Order: sequence, then C-alpha cells, then structure tokens
Amino acid sequence: MSLTIKLTITPRVINLNLHPRQRTKIPAYSLGFRPKPIYHSNALVPILDSNKQPRMSQASVSGSVIKSYLIEPDGGVLVDVIVPESERGSKALEAESLPKVRLAKIDVEWVHVISEGWASPLKGFMRENEYLQSLHFNSLRMQNGTVVNMSLPIVLAIDDETKKNIGSSKDIGLVGPDGDLLAILRSVEIYKHNKEERIARTWGTTAPGLPYVEEFITPAGNWLIGGDLEVLKTIKYNDGLDHYRLSPRQLREEFDRRQADAVFAFQLRNPVHNGHALLMNDTRRRLLEMGYKNPILLLHPLGGFTKADDVPLDVRMKQHSKVLEDGVLDPETTIVSIFPSPMHYAGPTEVQWHAKARINAGANFYIVGRDPAGMGHPTEKRDLYDPDHGKKVSKHGPRTGKAEYFAI
Amino acid sequence: MSLTIKLTITPRVINLNLHPRQRTKIPAYSLGFRPKPIYHSNALVPILDSNKQPRMSQASVSGSVIKSYLIEPDGGVLVDVIVPESERGSKALEAESLPKVRLAKIDVEWVHVISEGWASPLKGFMRENEYLQSLHFNSLRMQNGTVVNMSLPIVLAIDDETKKNIGSSKDIGLVGPDGDLLAILRSVEIYKHNKEERIARTWGTTAPGLPYVEEFITPAGNWLIGGDLEVLKTIKYNDGLDHYRLSPRQLREEFDRRQADAVFAFQLRNPVHNGHALLMNDTRRRLLEMGYKNPILLLHPLGGFTKADDVPLDVRMKQHSKVLEDGVLDPETTIVSIFPSPMHYAGPTEVQWHAKARINAGANFYIVGRDPAGMGHPTEKRDLYDPDHGKKVSKHGPRTGKAEYFAI
Repeated sequence: MSLTIKLTITPRVINLNLHPRQRTKIPAYSLGFRPKPIYHSNALVPILDSNKQPRMSQASVSGSVIKSYLIEPDGGVLVDVIVPESERGSKALEAESLPKVRLAKIDVEWVHVISEGWASPLKGFMRENEYLQSLHFNSLRMQNGTVVNMSLPIVLAIDDETKKNIGSSKDIGLVGPDGDLLAILRSVEIYKHNKEERIARTWGTTAPGLPYVEEFITPAGNWLIGGDLEVLKTIKYNDGLDHYRLSPRQLREEFDRRQADAVFAFQLRNPVHNGHALLMNDTRRRLLEMGYKNPILLLHPLGGFTKADDVPLDVRMKQHSKVLEDGVLDPETTIVSIFPSPMHYAGPTEVQWHAKARINAGANFYIVGRDPAGMGHPTEKRDLYDPDHGKKVSKHGPRTGKAEYFAI
Repeated sequence: MSLTIKLTITPRVINLNLHPRQRTKIPAYSLGFRPKPIYHSNALVPILDSNKQPRMSQASVSGSVIKSYLIEPDGGVLVDVIVPESERGSKALEAESLPKVRLAKIDVEWVHVISEGWASPLKGFMRENEYLQSLHFNSLRMQNGTVVNMSLPIVLAIDDETKKNIGSSKDIGLVGPDGDLLAILRSVEIYKHNKEERIARTWGTTAPGLPYVEEFITPAGNWLIGGDLEVLKTIKYNDGLDHYRLSPRQLREEFDRRQADAVFAFQLRNPVHNGHALLMNDTRRRLLEMGYKNPILLLHPLGGFTKADDVPLDVRMKQHSKVLEDGVLDPETTIVSIFPSPMHYAGPTEVQWHAKARINAGANFYIVGRDPAGMGHPTEKRDLYDPDHGKKVSKHGPRTGKAEYFAI
C-alpha cells in the first residue's frame, strides 16, 4: 500500500516504516503552513488574506472565543447554515408556506454535509455555475478570484412534476423522507440534469453498475435545483452513533482543546487492519520527527451511503473503538469521528473531496492510500482507476485562498 | 446566435446590433488589460511578472526587435520548438540513430500545433502529469504555481510493439506518414492510454460515433508517450494553402505591424455567412465604442481534421477570400489565417482550447457562438451539449500568469 501525506508544497519523499510488502517511497506535501496552537480571546472575524504567513481561523467555544492556528477552511470561513434556535419557529412557519421538495435519504446526507461546512465555501446545493465548474475544473472560483477544490457535484435532483409545482417560486421547503420539514432552499435555480454528462465527467466511465449512479442518478429526476440552504435543525440519525458525528467546528474545537499543532486525517470505509494502524502510528512518528510536538490523528470513517459489500457503519464503529481500547492507537492523540458524506466510488475525482472536507475540519495532513475511493470496473475485469491516479491527481487540486494547489 | 466577447474580468452585458433573431444580451469579458502598441527596439527577454500593469511580450521581426503590448501567451513565453536551421543537420543525424515512432496525419497536425506555440506552455506531447491535470482540471499548473488553461489532452498514442521497440530509450525519433523524419521527442515517458476514461472526461459521453474518437482513439495504441519536442522543420502541407498558415509568432508580428490595440478572433469551420459577417463587424464597432483605436479581426478557420460533413478547407478558404474581396469585411483590419488544430467536437471542453490557442497568438478578445465545438449526440436525437455551456464554462478557465480566470 502506497500512502501519501500532505506535508509541503514542494514534494519530498519519505519512507514509511512498514513491513516489506507495504514499504514504499511516498511523496509528502503540505497544505502550506506549520500551525502552532495559541489560545486567547479575540473577536470573531473571518481571515481572508492570502499572504504566506500562518493565518488564523477563529471559533467560539461555549461562549468564549479562541484563536486557532489550525489550517483555514476553504474560502476562509467555515460554512454553517443551521438556523439558530431562536429563529427556527418563524423559519419553520415560512417553510410550511413554500412549495415542497421531498428528499431521499441520500439528499439528507448531503444536506448534513453542506449544513456543517464540510463543503465550505458551498452554502447549498449547487447552482449551474458551480455545477459546471465542478464538472470541468474540479474546483470553484470564489468572488475574490481565488480557487478552491470542489471535485464532486453536490446537487439535488427533482422530477418534472416537482419542477412544475415549484413554478417560479424563489424559495422552497425541503422535506425529509419521513415528512418532517428539514430546510429552506433560497433563491433556487433549476437547470437540466444531463445525467450522461454528469456521470462521464465524474466517474470517467458510463458503464452500467456504478453503485452511486444506479442507486441515485439513473432513477433521479431530469432537473437539478440549486440554492442556498437554511437547515432548520441539526441532522440526526438516532442510530446510537450520533455522538460520533462531530461537525467540522466541533472537531476544530477539539483539536484546539488538545492543543494540536498538526492534524492528520485517515479516511476509511472498512475496518481498521494492522497495516492501517501501523501506517497511522508511523505517520505520527514522522510528524514528531519533523518537529511537530502534538500531532493528533483524526480517524474518520465515512458514514454516508456505501455499497452493499462494504462493512456496515455500526460494525465498523465497534471495531474502531476496539482498536483504541486495545491500545493499538493512542486515545490521547486520536479522535474517532464519523464523516457524514456518502461514497461516490469515483476514485481520483472523489479523493479530492475526501481531502478537501478534512481540510475544512482542520486537518492539514491527509493520508492517501492505493486506489483511494476506487473499485473494480463494473463491466471489465480490472480496477476502474489506475491505483496511482488518486495520489497523482490530488497533488494538483487547488488550495483555498491563494489558488495554490494542495496535495495529499 | 448568442455571442460572447472577452472584455473585462468583471462581466458586463452588451447588446450586439443584429437582426432580431440574432439579437441577444451577451456577457463581455476581458483577458485582463487594455493593450497599447509601442514600437521600439529592446533586448528579447521573456516577461513573467504577474502584476496588474500591462505586460509586454517581445518578438523579433526580420532581425530587429519590437516591443508589443499584445496579450501575453500562456506561461509568459511563446513556445517555439522548431530546431534552428544551423542545428538541423546534427539533430537529424541523431534522430536517425533513435528508435522511431511512425506518426499518423493527425499526430503531425498536433506536432504542428505544439511546435509553433499554440499550446504554450506545452513543449511536447503530454506526460502523465500533464495529461491528468488536463483531464481533471482542464488546466496545467506551471512550476511557479500559476495555472493556465489546457482543456484537451494533447497526446501521442503508441501500440505494444512500438513500446517494446522503444524499450528504455530516453529519446525517440518521430517519422511522418511518408517516412520523413519530423522530430525528436526527448525524455519520453510512457503511460497507460485508458481510452474509456479519456473519452468520458473529454467528451462527457462514451457513446459510439464521436468523430475524433472513432477515427483516432478507438484504433490507437494502448499507451501514451509524452516528452519534449524538437521539430526538425516547419510543418508544411503543400496544398496551396500554406501561405495562410501563420504561426502565433507571425500573427503577433502582423498585429504589431498593423499597430493593433485590440485583436478579436473568430473561429469557424464552415463558410462565413452574413450573420457571421454582421457579428464580426458589429464587434469591431463595439470595440471602437469602447475606446480602442485599431481593433484587428483574426478570421481564423480551423485547418486540421474536421468531420466528413463539414465543408472542406480549400472550399472554405476560397469563400473567406471572396468575403474580403466583396468588402463584407475590411481587408485593412482583417487577417485571414488557418488555425492548424484538429477538431475534437468536444463542446465546452474544446472551446476553451480554441480560445486559449488564440490568446497565444495575441488575441485578447474571442467571439463564442451558440454551442461552440458542438454537434448532435451520436446516438440520441438531441444536441450533445447544452448550447449555452460553452459560454458558461469558458468564463471559468484559468488565465495565464496569475491563476486568474479568463472568459469568452
């Protein structure tokens, strides 16, 4: 297994100390600066300057405000579109009066993702302008001209009848699968859902049998509706695992609380095995060797849609807990949390999303394995993606704020 | 027909004065500065700074050197990989000793395109690193971190046997369809030609019947070979039209000779009709209204591969000459020249290439029509691309030197 760690913009090669089959030279990259934790009170202001100095992001913790040197979220400000408690009554009343769109489970997962800022600077389902940038450039251009990574289209599909019901309404209400009012989508734009083009540009194939496509795109409507989200309540799943679902803001607060000077994320959608554990421990050792004093591991299993033959989330979470209990990973320097995104299985296109979302949660290092987010070709006897392309493509994704490329 | 003109980074909307069916509001964008022609002698140096002042590119004209305020080529320096006369003998001798790759006609067209700098900063057929950036980001990152547009993979395919013959050779000779030695490809890199992925990400479909795919990709080898080109002689076609094939450098020299303070390009692959002529004249009028004193039109028919039902090049060139003779376009302010690129018919992906190549030739305005580089879907009764996507996507391509976006 070949792994890559975000370290510096200039590639360096480091050896991970693994057993021979896993030993490999890997390039190492950084997201641009060496964070140092500083804790004191200050006013909450978004920092958007793009000079080379370490930049600060700030977050409120239980009423007080801390200043953190964690890596900035894409766009400089962590998106949070969950309506404050005090406004929920009036917004819910308004939402009742709007045309409604009924969400499927997968849509709710995306509402969750957007609402907490994993996709910052995205504030809602994509309008056509964002959708086209995502498909063609795997990135979004901000109003100030800077470019951020956005490799997957995050879109909401509707059918002809729903489109007709919406008519010329500017705002709509989003209703969950159980009929509960979840959100308002503001200043909506409806545009064509060219499924073939979306699939071809996202997956690099249109072969039948792609799990996300079969489940959610082929049966979806012929229109996409974009707009700004206002989410009426935090999305909960009531599956006994909600306490694992920390938002990017909560994670950042926890990293600050632990005085992390480096955060390295490991995404997985299957149980941790010994090779993984070795890699994570070895990465920590390397970061210490590089001079970081307190690197924190974000062990970050994916909690949204996965294909039928992946291990179910609850089983995985039990296994991850066991790994910590057994001391294979140090609980003092490890945070286990659930990443709420669904899987696309879109290989090099998707791994950019996985890294970008973790940047938004404060991780400045991201471990990339062989064939990340890959799978077998659905109709041919081969991997769908070149196992090295995820690593190679990730290097070139644009990093927030400076139109710089980040690498993983 | 909806047309868009590059004018300013901030979109403005202008009305083209057309007959009612053609009248439409169009966004107008610029490539970043208002050039003024200045003519005096100076040393030939590449200008790479990226401040907001007008930047100069310089070119030698018949031994003397002029300074021009034409828009900079992508990457700051116009690529020219045609071997100087004095070195041809020794290089040809060297090339004879190298493993050879036999080029098809289409490959020669691409050698032509690269050799004269239309694809600047690309100096040869893409290596994997450039290929992946092109597929995923429609752009290339330069070593200094800036980003330039590069939406089409410009690649050379070889088969298993040729790969075997090349073995571990670092350099190879490229031989034309007639057996004449055309070029050396240096420091080659051979990597997998995943045709399905290339097609899906470039065209947004894998439906059978795409002309470029059927002719040149499906029958091509399973490997791509990248490297730096050294072209042993200027590519000529001996079809009576070579005098129309001005290189970007020759075009820049001609624009300077005419003291152009704006250059607007019009790409076409079919005869000029009255609507086109009206549009070009109206664009000129608009540019004059904007304060430009001497806008020059580059009427730039595409001369490489076109599909069977497009009008042949020689017929088109005769028609274009007639349009000038008849005074429909003013010969004093119009240059007719042939753009040597082949057509992909890849819609929004390809129109970026069309605009980028014209920037390299000094055009700071580019007219985009409805459904640029589009065609009917090969297997469904509809346009392959949304007719507005070319215009919408073009806006977001990165512009040279500053990682800015250009728009057309």
